[in-house]
Parts: sequence; C-alpha cells; structure tokens
Amino acid sequence: MKVLIMNAGSSSQKSCLYEIGEKLPTTAPTPLWSGSADWTKEVGKVELKAKTSSGKRYEHIISTRERTQIIHELLSTMWEGETRVIESSSEVALAGHRVVHGGSHYRESVFITPEVRQTIEQLKSFAPLHNPANLEGFIAVDEVFGNIPQVATFDTAFHSTLPPQSTIYPLPYELYEQGIRRYGFHGISHQYCSRRAAEILQRSQQGLRLITCHLGNGCSLAAIRNGKSIETTMGFTPLEGLMMGTRSGTIDPSILLYLQREHGYDTTRLETLLNKQSGLRGISGISGDLRQVMEAAQNEENERARLAIDIYIYRLRYFIGALVAVLGGLDALLFTGGVGENAAEIRARTCTGLAFLHLKIDDQKNNSSPVDADIAHPDSSARVLIVHTEEDWEIACECWRLAQSQPALKVLLSHP
Amino acid sequence: MKVLIMNAGSSSQKSCLYEIGEKLPTTAPTPLWSGSADWTKEVGKVELKAKTSSGKRYEHIISTRERTQIIHELLSTMWEGETRVIESSSEVALAGHRVVHGGSHYRESVFITPEVRQTIEQLKSFAPLHNPANLEGFIAVDEVFGNIPQVATFDTAFHSTLPPQSTIYPLPYELYEQGIRRYGFHGISHQYCSRRAAEILQRSQQGLRLITCHLGNGCSLAAIRNGKSIETTMGFTPLEGLMMGTRSGTIDPSILLYLQREHGYDTTRLETLLNKQSGLRGISGISGDLRQVMEAAQNEENERARLAIDIYIYRLRYFIGALVAVLGGLDALLFTGGVGENAAEIRARTCTGLAFLHLKIDDQKNNSSPVDADIAHPDSSARVLIVHTEEDWEIACECWRLAQSQPALKVLLSHP
Repeated sequence: MKVLIMNAGSSSQKSCLYEIGEKLPTTAPTPLWSGSADWTKEVGKVELKAKTSSGKRYEHIISTRERTQIIHELLSTMWEGETRVIESSSEVALAGHRVVHGGSHYRESVFITPEVRQTIEQLKSFAPLHNPANLEGFIAVDEVFGNIPQVATFDTAFHSTLPPQSTIYPLPYELYEQGIRRYGFHGISHQYCSRRAAEILQRSQQGLRLITCHLGNGCSLAAIRNGKSIETTMGFTPLEGLMMGTRSGTIDPSILLYLQREHGYDTTRLETLLNKQSGLRGISGISGDLRQVMEAAQNEENERARLAIDIYIYRLRYFIGALVAVLGGLDALLFTGGVGENAAEIRARTCTGLAFLHLKIDDQKNNSSPVDADIAHPDSSARVLIVHTEEDWEIACECWRLAQSQPALKVLLSHP
Repeated sequence: MKVLIMNAGSSSQKSCLYEIGEKLPTTAPTPLWSGSADWTKEVGKVELKAKTSSGKRYEHIISTRERTQIIHELLSTMWEGETRVIESSSEVALAGHRVVHGGSHYRESVFITPEVRQTIEQLKSFAPLHNPANLEGFIAVDEVFGNIPQVATFDTAFHSTLPPQSTIYPLPYELYEQGIRRYGFHGISHQYCSRRAAEILQRSQQGLRLITCHLGNGCSLAAIRNGKSIETTMGFTPLEGLMMGTRSGTIDPSILLYLQREHGYDTTRLETLLNKQSGLRGISGISGDLRQVMEAAQNEENERARLAIDIYIYRLRYFIGALVAVLGGLDALLFTGGVGENAAEIRARTCTGLAFLHLKIDDQKNNSSPVDADIAHPDSSARVLIVHTEEDWEIACECWRLAQSQPALKVLLSHP
C-alpha cells in the first residue's frame, strides 16, 4: 500500500511516499519519492524539489500562489516527468499528516473526519503558523487524490502521558481549564527514538529510563519511562525549554513585561524577538545554524560565537539534570536531530558535564557520529545513543497501525 | 557599636538593632530591638509593632502618611516608651540596608554615597516596588540620625559570581549589554546559609558543593561551590524559577503573548496575574500561604490544594536536579526560610524523589524540624541541613566588615 506523508511547516511543505505491506520493517526504508516546497529562498518564489529512491531528481522555481496549488504541483512529480514513481495519483491509498498541535483532544493518531478538521481549525490560536498549513494540506490531498482516507499524527500526542505536575503551570487554575497548559512537541521524533533506543539496546522499553535530546533548529528533551513521555522541555508552545537556533527557550517572563513597559515593544515584535532573533543567532550575531556558529567560533576573535555554544551546552546539561531528577536516574541518553546526530563536540561536552551520573562517552565512537549506535564507553553506567530520527516513517507506522482497523485498508496492506 | 538594620519591602518596613563589638559571634544574637510597619492590614492604616530582647512589646495602628514619617515613628520606639533600649537616637552609629537590586554595579556591600543613591535610583526600572522604598529608607535614616554612615547590602551581590553561561539569556546579545540578564535574588540569605552550612558540617566552604533552598513567600535555589554562587533559579527579576506562594515562577513566555493577543490582557494585568494570583494561590484557589494550603489538603475533597503541593514539590525537585548537574554532584542540600525550616513534609517528599543521588533523610530528625542541624540519615551520601536564615544578622556582619575599613567606626567597635 502506498502511503503519502505530508509534513507542513509555516513556510515549507515536505512530503514523501512509502510502500508498506503486512509487516513493518524494523528500520525505516528509503521512501520511493520525496519532495519539498520552500517559500524562504526568494521573495515571491517557491522552490520545488523532488527525488526518487533510484536517484532521479527534479528542481524548479515557480511563482508563489495558493498553498494548495503549490502542493498539487509538488505532488504531481510523483506521476509525471523524470521523478515518476507511480502510474497515477490513484495508487496512493492513504495520506498521513504531521499536525503540530493536537491540544488536549488527541492522545494518539486519528483518521481525519470533518470533526477532526474542525478541532484542528479551533486549535489554530495555539499554533497560528502550523495548524492552518495542515488544514490546507488536507484540502490539497482531497483535491489531488479525491477523498482517500487521511490520518493526523500529532506532535503533541506522545506527551499526552505527562502527569498533572508537569502539564499544569503554577498559574490560576482557570487558565489550565482554558487549555493553557504544557503540551510538549517533537513527539513523533521522541516516540520513534524511544522505540529505536530499546531496539538498539536489545531490551524492553519497560523499566527503561531514557532522555531523548532532539536537537535541530528546534530543540527539546523528553524524559521517557516505560516507553511513555513523563516530562519534556517544550510546553504550551515550542518556545519553552532549551536554547535553540533562533528561539530563546525559557527566560524570565518578566523580561517581556519590562521590554513592553520600558522600551515600547508590542506583542508582534516580542514574538519575532523570541522566536527568530534569539538563541544561537541572538548571542552569536551570526546565524541560527550551529554549524556556522561553530565555524565562526574557530576564529579566536569571535568570542560571541564561542559564548553562544557555551550557553547552548550549559542549558542542555541544565535541563538534562532536571529530567534526570524527574526520572529518578538515567539508563540512556539519546541524541537525535541535525545537531544531535552530527555535532560530536556538543555531545562530548554535554556528557563531560554529566560525569557525576557515571556517564562516559567513547571519544572515538563519538567522533565518527555513527547512525543508530551506542557511543558510551564500556565503563559508563548509562548508555549514550545516537539515533537518526525518522519522523516521516513514524507517521507511516502510525498509518499502518490505524489501517489495521479498517478492513478496506487492511486488504490493501496484504495485496499491494 | 549599635547598628540599625533596615529591610524595606514594597508594603512593609522591618528594622532591628544589633550591638556588635570587635569580634562577631558565630551564631546570630537576638537583636536589642526589632520593629515593623505593615501597610497591608487595613486600608489607609499602618500597623506598627516593636519588641525588645527583654520581651517588651509595642503595637499601634496609625493613619497612612509618607513612608519616611512612618519609619520615623517606628524607629522612635527605640528611645521612647516601653520598648526603649537606647538613651537617644545618637547611639546608633551605623545603618545597614537590604537593597533588593544592585544591578551589574555592585558585587559586594558598599557605603552609601550620593553616587550609590543615584545608581539605586537608576535601577528602579528593574525593581520598581523595592528600590524606591530603599531610597526613602536612606532619607528617613538621614532625617532621624543626622547623616550617620549607611551601608547597602544587595540581594543580588552574592550572585555576582555567576558565570556568563548562567547570567546571559539566549536573547539578542544587545539586550544583555542593556542589563537584561540574570541577577538572582535572596543573596543575603543564600550567603548566610552557605557559611552556616560549613560551620554545621565542620568543614571548609572550599570544595563544598551545596544547594540552598530558600523557601518562603518567595522561593529560590542557589548552587554554591567553594562558597560562591554559581547558579540560582531567580533571574532578571524575582519571578523566575520555582513555584512560589503567589508567583508562577518559570512558564512558557509565549503564554504572556497568547493572553495579550487572544484575551486582551495588558502588562499591568499580566504583572498582577504572574506575581499575585499564581503559584500556590493560583492552583489551590485558597491562599499563597503553604500552611493554609496544607491544611486544606487534609480535606479529601480538596483536590486542588493537594495538586498545588504536588506541583510545588515537583518543580522544587526539577530545579534541584538542574542545579546538581551544574554543580556536577552534591555534598549537601539545605532548607531555609519559613517553608524550608518548618514544612517537614515538603523536605521529606523532595528528598524521596532524589534518592538516586543517594540522599536519604532521617524521618525522626526531619519531623522535629531542628534549627541549624543535619537531618540526613547516617547512610545518606549527601547531607541534608535545616538552617534558620538570618538576613538581618548577615547585613550586620557586612556592616561589621565594612566598618573595619573606616578608622572612626573601627574605634567604635572596640569601645562600645
């Protein structure tokens, strides 16, 4: 059965196509086709890219128009031109969407009904950049594939197991009842990694105390016990917690009031400040991309680049310490995401500061940044893992699970 | 030499009078006289109270007038009426003030010069409720005692040793240069407790890794190594960090933007919400006083009171975990402040969650809430201390230290 995965960002749209059968492979297969649309490269233009598992590529720049039209254009490279991998759009049986915010409503993936669409619409005040993009994605799929079943997989769902002590902010209780609570994000990645960790360690998730560090442009940690998220660093929105590429993470909330009162900031300016101009970019003054900041830090005179990295690691270790206290100890620390999978220095320096947990990295293994491997020193009492995150594949697996419950889809799984 | 200590709150003024000589006692003596003015009891009225070391008491309610006049009225009970302990105001040789915010300027206590007054005046945008009250206190002392030397002891000074990774928020670096950074508060208490901890443990502060939990109406932790603060939970203002009586502590900063955008809150309303209506009060709906919330929690039906306590302890343990990671291990955990010194249940439950640090409390000792004692179980690898904080005495000690540098004052110390 061919499953299309749709991953909508505020100014990007990524998609890929998987073939899934009766049994799921343990490791993520390469998608038959993957494509992306990117609004950020050139004003008024959209960059389309696609590639196939056999190495065929497509690149094209078009003028901006409605999101649904652009998605249509992108998806059509699956059955047209060089990157054609299917005969026609009718071969796609199911579409799975990454939805950033599921609010308190969704504890797991669901088939998208009119009611689900309405709820995701209502949740857009919580995720003003993302949820509307998802809704347009649903419509585009309807238009292109004519009402195939669609699945929503929520980035918040994996954290629906957080206990009340973690979800409820020490604010007036009425605000909690209005939905102002901690949700957590990156849940699809944390969920995939936690399952993969158990596989790599060849042990059950039961009894395993794990901290997963998802470090990309956005960064978050999850504390996972028995395969369930019990704490995470992002909260009501993806701004809370760790220092990120361009996001501040946690700061004293009074700073917002001070900037408004004393410097006349309005909410739009604060939103931009905290989400786009802070983090690695804010401190270094160079970029929100850790690779660029690390390169700049090589220059002896660039103290702010080094400072940015120091603060990044310091805060990472700080929150790991907090989550260890929540878990009551640690069996494995896991790194994933662009930074987590590739930045050996970040992993090494973080673990050095955690030596009191009897955590010890094997420098040689760490420096080679292996995929899906344990890089702890044999003497280390806790394991240190690198896992290549596979969010799209995790969504495909969720689709597979839901497909089991629908006879028509189940048949397609066994007769592709 | 008689030293007057002035501790100004936003709606209170506490004072006390110590006699100090050539040598400082190890433990804090009882002040000759102590007094308070409280604006919160009755609208338009101020409650004055005073007592002496011999047990004489004074209580009076007067109409509100200028703060300096009220301070005058309060202080005059030192040489007038039942609570008289000195012949005349001229016996007071030195006044020491607790100043909440010393900004980046003051790393230690200083004599109050016109320049110091100006700086404290300039810092009032950082501490709009407290620093103006201090300035009025300086004037009142001038008026009553006629230009005796005055000392400012800053609640931020002890944290001036925080490293850049802790002081600098992941915001645009320019904001740091404008003074938007982490300062930390309760420094006078954390400093006193850290010295007292070393005395109780009969070891040097050198090499000691200590976390001091100051839990009162306001709550903060300090991570102290070699007698120096290297991390603390309050930041730019005393709002950051732990859940408190009526303050939220750390929350996702986006919540402020959401409440402004979606619910029309303005900054004044947010300030009140976060500082006065949150914390224990916000969750329990009862009170910001832990004793009242704990009493309410006895009632089976009062789930929100229990929830408030659960979240309070959960966040306390969370931040202790973070600070242990900063310290790289822990030698002693110390509780102080009204809650820290008296709430055995809070101490017990916090430590239970920290068993992975091989921290174990002696239940019997803990339940008796001893003063300045080690309540750890003999098997515990880290010590657990209760210390009765003595902020006023710590200010008196700072005055004593500064007096050593002034010949005229030094003479007074040896010839009282």
